[in-house]
Amino acid sequence: MVNSLKQQLAILGSTGSIGRQTLQVVRNLTGRFQVIGLTAGQNLELLSEQIAEFHPKFIHYQAKEHAQLKTQDSQLLSPEEIAGHPEVDIVVIATSGKAGLSATLTAVKAGKKVAIANKEPLVMAGEIITREAKLSGAKILPIDSEHSAIWQCLNGESQPPQRIILTASGGPFRNYSQEQLLAVTPQQALKHPSWQMGKKVTIDSATLMNKGLEIMEAHWLFGVPLENIDVIIHPQSIIHSMVEFADGSFKAQLSHPDMRLPIQYALTYPERVPNPELPKLDWKKIKELTFEPPDLKKFPCLELAIKAAKAGGTSPAVLCAADEIAVALFLKESIKFTDIARLVDRVLQEHQVVSNPTLDQTLAADNWAKEKATEISKKAKTW
Amino acid sequence: MVNSLKQQLAILGSTGSIGRQTLQVVRNLTGRFQVIGLTAGQNLELLSEQIAEFHPKFIHYQAKEHAQLKTQDSQLLSPEEIAGHPEVDIVVIATSGKAGLSATLTAVKAGKKVAIANKEPLVMAGEIITREAKLSGAKILPIDSEHSAIWQCLNGESQPPQRIILTASGGPFRNYSQEQLLAVTPQQALKHPSWQMGKKVTIDSATLMNKGLEIMEAHWLFGVPLENIDVIIHPQSIIHSMVEFADGSFKAQLSHPDMRLPIQYALTYPERVPNPELPKLDWKKIKELTFEPPDLKKFPCLELAIKAAKAGGTSPAVLCAADEIAVALFLKESIKFTDIARLVDRVLQEHQVVSNPTLDQTLAADNWAKEKATEISKKAKTW
Repeated sequence: MVNSLKQQLAILGSTGSIGRQTLQVVRNLTGRFQVIGLTAGQNLELLSEQIAEFHPKFIHYQAKEHAQLKTQDSQLLSPEEIAGHPEVDIVVIATSGKAGLSATLTAVKAGKKVAIANKEPLVMAGEIITREAKLSGAKILPIDSEHSAIWQCLNGESQPPQRIILTASGGPFRNYSQEQLLAVTPQQALKHPSWQMGKKVTIDSATLMNKGLEIMEAHWLFGVPLENIDVIIHPQSIIHSMVEFADGSFKAQLSHPDMRLPIQYALTYPERVPNPELPKLDWKKIKELTFEPPDLKKFPCLELAIKAAKAGGTSPAVLCAADEIAVALFLKESIKFTDIARLVDRVLQEHQVVSNPTLDQTLAADNWAKEKATEISKKAKTW
Repeated sequence: MVNSLKQQLAILGSTGSIGRQTLQVVRNLTGRFQVIGLTAGQNLELLSEQIAEFHPKFIHYQAKEHAQLKTQDSQLLSPEEIAGHPEVDIVVIATSGKAGLSATLTAVKAGKKVAIANKEPLVMAGEIITREAKLSGAKILPIDSEHSAIWQCLNGESQPPQRIILTASGGPFRNYSQEQLLAVTPQQALKHPSWQMGKKVTIDSATLMNKGLEIMEAHWLFGVPLENIDVIIHPQSIIHSMVEFADGSFKAQLSHPDMRLPIQYALTYPERVPNPELPKLDWKKIKELTFEPPDLKKFPCLELAIKAAKAGGTSPAVLCAADEIAVALFLKESIKFTDIARLVDRVLQEHQVVSNPTLDQTLAADNWAKEKATEISKKAKTW
């Protein structure tokens, strides 16, 4: 068979930002990957194009109006069936929110290489996913630029890190006053200064909620205690994170901010492959890299996330779910930018934490939090 | 035997800056190393103290007035005999100038772990040393902070780097005008803004000659072509160097500027060991890291070194030798700061390069260059 030496790749969420960039990387890595599975939500036009180009064996989509979808010879399977299919070698989790959780767990249990760009699976069910990965031998490969940076810095080191320093661009409102933050519109918030990302992640980036979720991801991926994970604001987004070792030495990973680099690294690890399409850093032009501590008063989502992480149990799932609703409401202009943190905080305060939850308990907490967030948001003026 | 599990360590140049710091590191790494050999130049008072504390089996010193030296039971051997002694596991080359060359080669041929802080051996005889190390299985462990940084960044990477970015503090005269440089005194030049180092290295740091020598060291240590090694000025001395990989990703190593960290890393590699004495970086206090290209017009030594490196053969040895004389003359206030580059340039211009030199030819070039530099310097006004 012609493709027998190629790795068989499934992308869950192939029409989103990370999914599209993953396919760009695959196009450049000629001969290495066979795209065997693609799943999408509503964007059937783009999915049709991807099917025509990559001829996946397996597809899935959520949209009900599929009249125009040219599936060619692709077979319709559920995301879980694709993620765990014996023919699949690598699964890229490029979905957003909790959509990828169940398929992630299936891929992990099946012992796949699981490249995760989606934060929620590890945040909501980090303990379960890492435990199952140990049992099955699945390799969890981070695609988030920060976690890819940490992973790259830990390469070849025989001891775990003492401390992780997650860098954050600080988002477009880093220097806004409280009054200015009150008036932020979705249009303003969707303009991220350095990264090309989906809407949800871009808003989470502007509130720093994103960085809070990344603390939890880093905790599960690298086994570092929460109190040894720090966040610093680094507006140039060139250092993607740093690691401190026992002897006080730090390593940092740096590059032009472009998600295709961490995507490619996860796909080709341990090899590094030239990619002429990726923009290069030019040290003749870089004048300075700056750092400042995050302002937790102006960006309370970061502190809420840290609190939820330390509370553990179902708290992180509730945080994620409440945030998903809050961000959606903000994008619809139903609530203000500063209400995102307030709404999440309210939901967390009303939550009865379940310790060591099962996956069902985690999903139940997610449902509860979404309903609670929606309910609270409707009682305008009283919260 | 009590010490049978300890690594047997010899330090050539134990009374100099790197030698003293190596002993500080050894004191902190209780139970890991037995100091079996120490060599010194003229500082017999300090050598006596070191002998009393560490009880080395083997010693060497250059000073002729040794009445006050308490050698205890130490045996007098030549540096070469110590470097190649069967009982020695690790040799730290902490000498300055070409003094360590012959002993370095002996240690390399004997297949030791050779931790090199001294630039000249690799600059003068990099081809011979790396060839012999391959034959004997000797491990060359860099102690220079820049090369330690590169080595740390290459840890675990399966492919050679595409590019090396050597960082330089820029020295104390980074922002001086040509006129100000003309008037620089030895006292001014010996105040390095970030590092504690010996006199020769401190002056070489102020002229950027040091960085030129480091380009050659990096070339030999990591097999990277000269044209793929860049220098950038980074006055904070926190990033100690960077490496670029095939995929465009960079790694950097960072720490408080303190030579004890790279010394310890070389001694304990691949392990990293906590050392409470080493100052730690505090990212809450670091506001910025800045970068600028080196000014080759104001600091011509860097360009001279690159030229000599590209010319190859005996040129690097001539560069080193002429620089050794020029720096000594500057420290005696016989020539101006800006004359260091002029004198080295004159000697290089008069040199007939020998390609693929033997060690004897290299040493002959060294002698010739020292005589030539002295001779030219005496003809005041005409050069």
